[in-house]
Amino acid sequence: METATCTAPVNIAVIKYWGKRDEKLLLPINDSVSVTLSEMYAKTTIAASPNFSKNRLWLNGQEQTFDSPRIINVLRQFQEEVKKSGAQGEKYSWNIHICSENNFPTAAGLASSAAGYACLVYTLATLYGLQDKIELSSIARVGSGSACRSVFGGFVQWEAGIRADGADSVAVQLAPATHWPDLEILILVVSDNKKKTSSTGGMERSVKTSPLIDYRAKQIVPGRVEKISKAIQERDFDTFANITMQDSNQFHAICLDTFPPCVYLNDVSHAIIDVIHRLNEASGKITAAYTFDAGPNACLYLMRQDVPHVLNVIKRAFPSDRDHAPDYIKGIPVADQPIPETVAKKMNLEPIGQNLLKYIIHTRVGEGPQILPPSESLLTNSGLPKNH
Amino acid sequence: METATCTAPVNIAVIKYWGKRDEKLLLPINDSVSVTLSEMYAKTTIAASPNFSKNRLWLNGQEQTFDSPRIINVLRQFQEEVKKSGAQGEKYSWNIHICSENNFPTAAGLASSAAGYACLVYTLATLYGLQDKIELSSIARVGSGSACRSVFGGFVQWEAGIRADGADSVAVQLAPATHWPDLEILILVVSDNKKKTSSTGGMERSVKTSPLIDYRAKQIVPGRVEKISKAIQERDFDTFANITMQDSNQFHAICLDTFPPCVYLNDVSHAIIDVIHRLNEASGKITAAYTFDAGPNACLYLMRQDVPHVLNVIKRAFPSDRDHAPDYIKGIPVADQPIPETVAKKMNLEPIGQNLLKYIIHTRVGEGPQILPPSESLLTNSGLPKNH
Repeated sequence: METATCTAPVNIAVIKYWGKRDEKLLLPINDSVSVTLSEMYAKTTIAASPNFSKNRLWLNGQEQTFDSPRIINVLRQFQEEVKKSGAQGEKYSWNIHICSENNFPTAAGLASSAAGYACLVYTLATLYGLQDKIELSSIARVGSGSACRSVFGGFVQWEAGIRADGADSVAVQLAPATHWPDLEILILVVSDNKKKTSSTGGMERSVKTSPLIDYRAKQIVPGRVEKISKAIQERDFDTFANITMQDSNQFHAICLDTFPPCVYLNDVSHAIIDVIHRLNEASGKITAAYTFDAGPNACLYLMRQDVPHVLNVIKRAFPSDRDHAPDYIKGIPVADQPIPETVAKKMNLEPIGQNLLKYIIHTRVGEGPQILPPSESLLTNSGLPKNH
Repeated sequence: METATCTAPVNIAVIKYWGKRDEKLLLPINDSVSVTLSEMYAKTTIAASPNFSKNRLWLNGQEQTFDSPRIINVLRQFQEEVKKSGAQGEKYSWNIHICSENNFPTAAGLASSAAGYACLVYTLATLYGLQDKIELSSIARVGSGSACRSVFGGFVQWEAGIRADGADSVAVQLAPATHWPDLEILILVVSDNKKKTSSTGGMERSVKTSPLIDYRAKQIVPGRVEKISKAIQERDFDTFANITMQDSNQFHAICLDTFPPCVYLNDVSHAIIDVIHRLNEASGKITAAYTFDAGPNACLYLMRQDVPHVLNVIKRAFPSDRDHAPDYIKGIPVADQPIPETVAKKMNLEPIGQNLLKYIIHTRVGEGPQILPPSESLLTNSGLPKNH
């Protein structure tokens, strides 16, 4: 039996991917740009053995059927890339056991599929010793579009490409994680029970029905990608923050222009947006930038020195009975620091409502996928999940 | 003392006006189309007398200063049109007392300024016997853009025009109120405490910051205006309804693409949108169409025969402690009629929340401004409000 255990990180887009030009190959209609996060990752062990009677898959402790079209697509694409690389051997025909888990709640709408598919591909490649020999991002892409961006750490651009076969639709690293060490992230997990439109279904409907989506993809996004790439290179937070917020808003505008509309933001999301604009106004500078994926949770980008007092602004606007619970702020610990008096005064902060946030995650810009030692394996020596 | 008392109706746009090309003359960047409502109107008495020592104004029972720039603009524009018409006389130099009230709550965000300014202009013209001699819609327009559409009953188009002086930015009637007698309207007044962005401030910010607004105005709206005008002429409810919903969504998409975003819809508005789409899906036909102005209240267009059961769908999704109160459904009385069983079954309607609606108004397509007899005057013989 051969095994490999790896992690792959979550990424959050600042220029959003929304709309496919090819549903099967998951080719997007526009470039996107993301930041890879530390602290939040998928961890996957894959074992291959001539003794396994079939392929098996466990996700977050639950065995799943192996016939998900996305998993099958990824494995097929992987095998094609292996063939192209010239690698061969008996082990490629062995059945595999895949065991994967996230270190964050899957249901919270926190880009779990991106980390999951990136981790699947990276772990497969590691298992066969091919991680530097094949293009991993385009394999991850066929599992979940944005997964291609989780193949790298730091700042990543997914180039839409123009080829029909998708060979040029790949992720590239714009800058490594160490490039902008004082950029940090707060994720505000919003309490929400609404049944949501899946992002796959939503973006398909947007492409079919939104009269604005094509104009966005062709006329707006290219300029924004160029400007935000430059802002990242120059560590120009003002530009980075403004484009991030505007592109989040435009993505959700396109969702609303879809028919029937896809609505991912709720009243709490909009209250967060309002608080951040008031904070920036009161600070006399852009202190924080919000972005929202296909769900109500906010992701805030901000500079390290502002994290403690912005956290207090958030806690004051959205008080929780669990404010002081040790697990209310997850991830990197944050020192306490009062809101500067002038800012507090100008914002005139009143609580918006109690328990509107479930918890907060504090992270920073993170590295790409990592190989873990055998001791970290999620599978036993017989290839079954350790925790069951 | 000479007096005139008139009413002017509320109108609700189906192709939305959003964005000005001239802030002072209130010239829009695109045509809009509206339906004039019955039941909901402003009522205004104007008295002119050589004995009045100054101009005075009462709105909904409260005296207001007479120096509002919008009122001054309307009066100036009126005087210019009077001059152009060749009318003259001593009475044009007399001071005036204006008393105006709405028969619906002003604060509910129900297009009260449109009815109010249309009524001001129509009553002024009536006072001087000029209502057929001067172009009223362009005078109303300088008070509140959409007021120009309340100068007519039935179905109305506001032509954006291209002239810098706004002379061609006028309203025209597409069809009279009697044209489509079985088209009716339900207005769902949503409970909401949020401080809202004024529509004037919002549309100014949209023009300055939304990268999509110009594309909407130039590339999307003209086709929609043409199609919906034809649908109105042909009483084609399906097309009318689909364009109405799509244009409401796109208007709110542009608001969200504005920076900082303007947010007028709340969770209840979105829940109403969702219920209407589910209703249409379950009915196997477009039964109702929603549209939202710059506020959370829904305006539903539907056919007369569907009003009773759609009302029951709304009551079941949004139950209220006041469901059975005599003033919960205002306007035209509605017979009770159960939801067709197949529709109820397919919709699988669960209550979304209690008391999310304040009340409902049932109206139909209405006539334009009306002249009332002297007995209806809001002013006493000495020119002061009767009710104070």
